[in-house]
Amino acid sequence: MKPVIGSVSLLFYFVKSCRASGADIALDAKATLLHRIDSLNLLIYTCLLTLTVLTIWVFKHRRVSWLHETGLAVIYGLIVGAIIRYAGSTNQVTYLDAHPEPNAKYNLSVPPDIVRFHFPDKIQISSGEIPVPNKTYAYSFRGEIVNLEQNEIDLKATFDPEIFFNIILPPIIFHAGYCLKRKYFFRNLGAILTFAMVGTALSALVIGSLMYGCVQLMPASLAASFTFLDTLYFGALISPTDPLTVLAIFSQLKVDVNLYAMIFGESVLNDAVALVLSGAIQNYEKRYSTDGGFEITAFLAAIGDFIGIFSLSLLVGAFIGCLTALISKFTHVRDWPLLESALFVLMSYAAFLIAEVCELTGVVAVLFCGICQAHYTYNNLSSDSRNRTKQLFELLNFLAENFIFTYIGVSMFTFPKHHFDPWFIIAGFLTSTLGRAINIYPLSFLLNLGRKPPIPMNFQHMLFFSGLRGAMSFALAIRNTVSEARQAMLTTTSLVVIATVVLQGGAASHALAYLRIPTGQGQSDESEALPYRDVRSLYQATDTGRPDTPRGSGDGGGEKARLARLWGAIDSKLLKPLLTHARPPLTETLPAFLRPLARLLTTTRQYTQGDNGLRRTDSDSDLCIDEPQPVPTTIDPQQLWPGLVDTRISVEGITGSNI
Amino acid sequence: MKPVIGSVSLLFYFVKSCRASGADIALDAKATLLHRIDSLNLLIYTCLLTLTVLTIWVFKHRRVSWLHETGLAVIYGLIVGAIIRYAGSTNQVTYLDAHPEPNAKYNLSVPPDIVRFHFPDKIQISSGEIPVPNKTYAYSFRGEIVNLEQNEIDLKATFDPEIFFNIILPPIIFHAGYCLKRKYFFRNLGAILTFAMVGTALSALVIGSLMYGCVQLMPASLAASFTFLDTLYFGALISPTDPLTVLAIFSQLKVDVNLYAMIFGESVLNDAVALVLSGAIQNYEKRYSTDGGFEITAFLAAIGDFIGIFSLSLLVGAFIGCLTALISKFTHVRDWPLLESALFVLMSYAAFLIAEVCELTGVVAVLFCGICQAHYTYNNLSSDSRNRTKQLFELLNFLAENFIFTYIGVSMFTFPKHHFDPWFIIAGFLTSTLGRAINIYPLSFLLNLGRKPPIPMNFQHMLFFSGLRGAMSFALAIRNTVSEARQAMLTTTSLVVIATVVLQGGAASHALAYLRIPTGQGQSDESEALPYRDVRSLYQATDTGRPDTPRGSGDGGGEKARLARLWGAIDSKLLKPLLTHARPPLTETLPAFLRPLARLLTTTRQYTQGDNGLRRTDSDSDLCIDEPQPVPTTIDPQQLWPGLVDTRISVEGITGSNI
Repeated sequence: MKPVIGSVSLLFYFVKSCRASGADIALDAKATLLHRIDSLNLLIYTCLLTLTVLTIWVFKHRRVSWLHETGLAVIYGLIVGAIIRYAGSTNQVTYLDAHPEPNAKYNLSVPPDIVRFHFPDKIQISSGEIPVPNKTYAYSFRGEIVNLEQNEIDLKATFDPEIFFNIILPPIIFHAGYCLKRKYFFRNLGAILTFAMVGTALSALVIGSLMYGCVQLMPASLAASFTFLDTLYFGALISPTDPLTVLAIFSQLKVDVNLYAMIFGESVLNDAVALVLSGAIQNYEKRYSTDGGFEITAFLAAIGDFIGIFSLSLLVGAFIGCLTALISKFTHVRDWPLLESALFVLMSYAAFLIAEVCELTGVVAVLFCGICQAHYTYNNLSSDSRNRTKQLFELLNFLAENFIFTYIGVSMFTFPKHHFDPWFIIAGFLTSTLGRAINIYPLSFLLNLGRKPPIPMNFQHMLFFSGLRGAMSFALAIRNTVSEARQAMLTTTSLVVIATVVLQGGAASHALAYLRIPTGQGQSDESEALPYRDVRSLYQATDTGRPDTPRGSGDGGGEKARLARLWGAIDSKLLKPLLTHARPPLTETLPAFLRPLARLLTTTRQYTQGDNGLRRTDSDSDLCIDEPQPVPTTIDPQQLWPGLVDTRISVEGITGSNI
Repeated sequence: MKPVIGSVSLLFYFVKSCRASGADIALDAKATLLHRIDSLNLLIYTCLLTLTVLTIWVFKHRRVSWLHETGLAVIYGLIVGAIIRYAGSTNQVTYLDAHPEPNAKYNLSVPPDIVRFHFPDKIQISSGEIPVPNKTYAYSFRGEIVNLEQNEIDLKATFDPEIFFNIILPPIIFHAGYCLKRKYFFRNLGAILTFAMVGTALSALVIGSLMYGCVQLMPASLAASFTFLDTLYFGALISPTDPLTVLAIFSQLKVDVNLYAMIFGESVLNDAVALVLSGAIQNYEKRYSTDGGFEITAFLAAIGDFIGIFSLSLLVGAFIGCLTALISKFTHVRDWPLLESALFVLMSYAAFLIAEVCELTGVVAVLFCGICQAHYTYNNLSSDSRNRTKQLFELLNFLAENFIFTYIGVSMFTFPKHHFDPWFIIAGFLTSTLGRAINIYPLSFLLNLGRKPPIPMNFQHMLFFSGLRGAMSFALAIRNTVSEARQAMLTTTSLVVIATVVLQGGAASHALAYLRIPTGQGQSDESEALPYRDVRSLYQATDTGRPDTPRGSGDGGGEKARLARLWGAIDSKLLKPLLTHARPPLTETLPAFLRPLARLLTTTRQYTQGDNGLRRTDSDSDLCIDEPQPVPTTIDPQQLWPGLVDTRISVEGITGSNI
């Protein structure tokens, strides 16, 4: 056992040494010490985030673009992680072997939650007996110990992986849903869904298969520890992309809104898809736990799981979102903005918790809850609450994202369960790049068959290039690190995330220039860019030029457009009038025999306000009904694109009807 | 062992039963179950808070005043707690006795952090052998088991008490500091400090002594388990008052600002005092652990502890607050409000963590950090950040407070370590009332000797009446429930909190009417009242009428006024110009030989803006320099008080220089 001395612990022990005497007090001191180690860990991250914030400011101030804030957070994390690791402070955890009392009453095959550990007066060790207090202590269950040799359980600056799923991810995902610019999202829904659903599954399968092949070529020790399900799980966790870095640069440079919508929409949805997919793979593993064999019923059950969990989670989230909209419409809680904001936050978090309690995926629920809150509830809120919720989630999102990237950096050095295997790491890098290519290029080709206007080649390259890996991959990788295979996956995932965020993120603006993707830089890039504000559309002219042609027409495209139109009609004639104060009121849109009900569900405000009221300002949420857009005021002639129209609609910014 | 069947667990087991097979999967299912129980607990509280928010709205809408929101939260908590308790769902924790391996290597007298628990193939129990997997599990240290008979360890809707101190209390306390109306706070500083410091200590001592006497008269079993230090600890934890309920009513009814300032300031500070005091009592206990004997050196050390920890924590908080002010003054981070707000939040939380890491009191640090942030940093922030931070902490405070009161209600039924002893409860109620009386009346009498204008008798009654107990008392009581004495304290504290919040809180508006304390009701009580806005001053006329007389003059009062004046001069001539953009610049106030330094520390903005700029709007923070106040516009003649002047300064509301 190493001496419990180090820079930090030395300080603590110095402070405590003046009063410790007796086992009880030692125990108390130990509890205090643990509490202070927790506080110190949090303090390290708080300081790191503060440093990141200050450096971001300096970078923004000096207009540095070769390193983005997330890259910065990762790099600071790496530096501090290395310092913690090599600073010599080994605050190692003490452990002791134990076995059950001979006459214990216990009749379950599962390990107990609590072990009541009797300390005898003396413990007999090889060299004699040492005195310990004759007391009983409670120990709570933590997990299985697989490798008895490896007793490096360390408490240095690491957190319970579950914290990521329950505390850090929900605000990030909710914010993404709450910020989704619905108009452009729904316009590109086909492409987004294809990339996110089909693409992610395809990418997971390709990466999984290739990795399994690679692993077979590797030294036997590692090859033996990987099953096909393991590599498939790796494929699922490395497939989702992170929007953060690229999109921050996009909105700074005011890139085309449709490209923005595709990348943002895809990365938001593929996080949800990957999470459910990895859950389905694990369930398959549970159902049929041989070493990688294939069983058709278990496979079908896994697919059923995937679809069922995804759609049920979606429904839970959407239901809670609509419920919030109804409450905010029919009560006057908007007169007290604090209550209203509290209600909004509580209901949104409830969506996450309800899904988790029902064994669904909370992240998916909270994403669709966010979309519904933005689409319906937001229109009912008082202006104070709109501001407050927007700013609150913006701040939470900023802190959570930077925390997770800082943690990725720090844990590279401090997390005890890393397993560096050079071949696996190289294979991981190659296959994840290949997986992204197989997601984008073939699917874009297929999409272009039935899509007007097609996705141009430089957009496809940019889609490929923006395949940064981020928070979701890391969270999935660190969730389970029991076996050597899983540890190698964690290490590779961490490295892929760090490399893509730092290198690709840093090169994004150069890639945009190299691919000649038009940007609107230089207009007013001083202002803190909210997602989607000040980004420009390439397709706008095409759309408005041919208002009669159903967009996306072609082989099978007409079907999709019809579906989108149907949804648009339901939304604007039924859901919007029901859930918000939008015109036309339900009394005009519902059939005659439902009039009494419609009258009950329509507010005075809906009757009294003119047609030019909310309907106009809410144009953003009209799905595929093309409205006349204002003519651009300032276009840089250098970057003029055939038919480019500036879509920075002034009405939106002023009326605040959009996020 | 009771069958693990109940309304909740039944659902879980039903869902899981279709796939569980084998010990590994059972273990996995167990982890999932625990995760879902956690989610369910959170969901219960989220729903309770949602319900509270909606009911508060209904009450506000219908102008119900006999029950306040905190009372409501407690009552809902009690109802749900009772349902959980008696719904029959007994999700009992399984436990097993264990002892160390004979050949374990261990050489510490403290119990280990981790127990590696070897499960043999079979466990021998009285009726035969049951099969269990031959595996090793990690168990982490949780605490000492004192009473082996009492194995009712239960997981129902309870949280780790440390959560209160590290997650729930910091935002509440920070918000209190951030909202402190400095002008009236500093005007009544003498009274506030007397009530908070001397009063709380006195009250703790009186309650502790009386309770010790009462306990001696009780049945021997309980009497034996209480030492004098225990009852003193009870005195310390039951002494702090909670401002919440009464103050919400005050600001709704627009009560005199000075009364408001005294009650708010006292209750904010006495939370901090009680926390440090209880820590000092525990340290005394550690140093000199006999059964209640008295040792002069340990006693002096405890007093030293109290003063040292309080003042060091204060310094840490103030230092971080000033550091934030400096950063926000000398960088242009205000151009990016999101970064600025993030910095503000991170630095404020860092104050808490630094104090905790240094074994000081984080709550005290965060309180004074909040005061400094409001006094200095707030003036440097961009208007976006002012709004954002104000609204963020308002919301956090609202949620945290209502959560804690809900939890008090729920835990009354679900927390396993309650000990109902009727005599102790009755004694607790009587002594805590008496302690409050001894805090207020004698100290008011002494204060009135050197105070002009004196505190009128009806104000004293109101101060006595607003002695509700709240979050801090509960948090201190639930922190340690190891012994029977501590459990009896927890039960009594919970009941005192519930009774005072529901009954006294509900009767507060009637008490105001009965005591004929003037209120400004009916002016515009529709608006959600921010603390201190729209409250009126009784002393204003007296102050402005005699601008030459030092306030608080009389026997010894001149000294205090001089100190306040000195501080006011330092603040307005050195600290404000150094830390904010306020005029006059340091170049005018510092002596000549420091001019180069002063020039370095002065911003262009400080030079360029006119004297009528920030200085005027910042009038609130001028400490004891009486400025001419605007004449009231609307006074209800019914409630006219001799010399009453309305101090709702319109400038403050518009310029936003105050919180």
